[in-house]
Amino acid sequence: MSTQTFPVTGLTCGHCVGAITSELKALPGVTDVQIELVVKGTSTVNVTADKALTDAEVLAALDEAGEYQLVTS
Amino acid sequence: MSTQTFPVTGLTCGHCVGAITSELKALPGVTDVQIELVVKGTSTVNVTADKALTDAEVLAALDEAGEYQLVTS
Repeated sequence: MSTQTFPVTGLTCGHCVGAITSELKALPGVTDVQIELVVKGTSTVNVTADKALTDAEVLAALDEAGEYQLVTS
Repeated sequence: MSTQTFPVTGLTCGHCVGAITSELKALPGVTDVQIELVVKGTSTVNVTADKALTDAEVLAALDEAGEYQLVTS
């Protein structure tokens, strides 16, 4: 079991949280998604899954959910 | 047929537009909903229906959709 934290910008409201949660939960192996919404800043997306997600998987889910940016270091 | 325009604040993104559109289209007689999103301002919600909606009907739909305020003069 793996819990990962992804910094994501572009979330503005609870609908954004819902859309991203829904897309991430649709990925194979994902058992939980928790998002701390920071409007006009960087939100924290916590994903618990059977195995670690790749950035590509997360990027694809964010793209499906809307206009969000994964903050990569 | 009646087309009414309602000024509404609190919309922040396309998900808000979708949620309000969905709730208004669920009202009896409503045939079309068009929303011009103004983030941080007053958005314009245009509703076309068989008969004019009351403010109470619109308020109830906005409440179902989320945290939005109908601007009443």
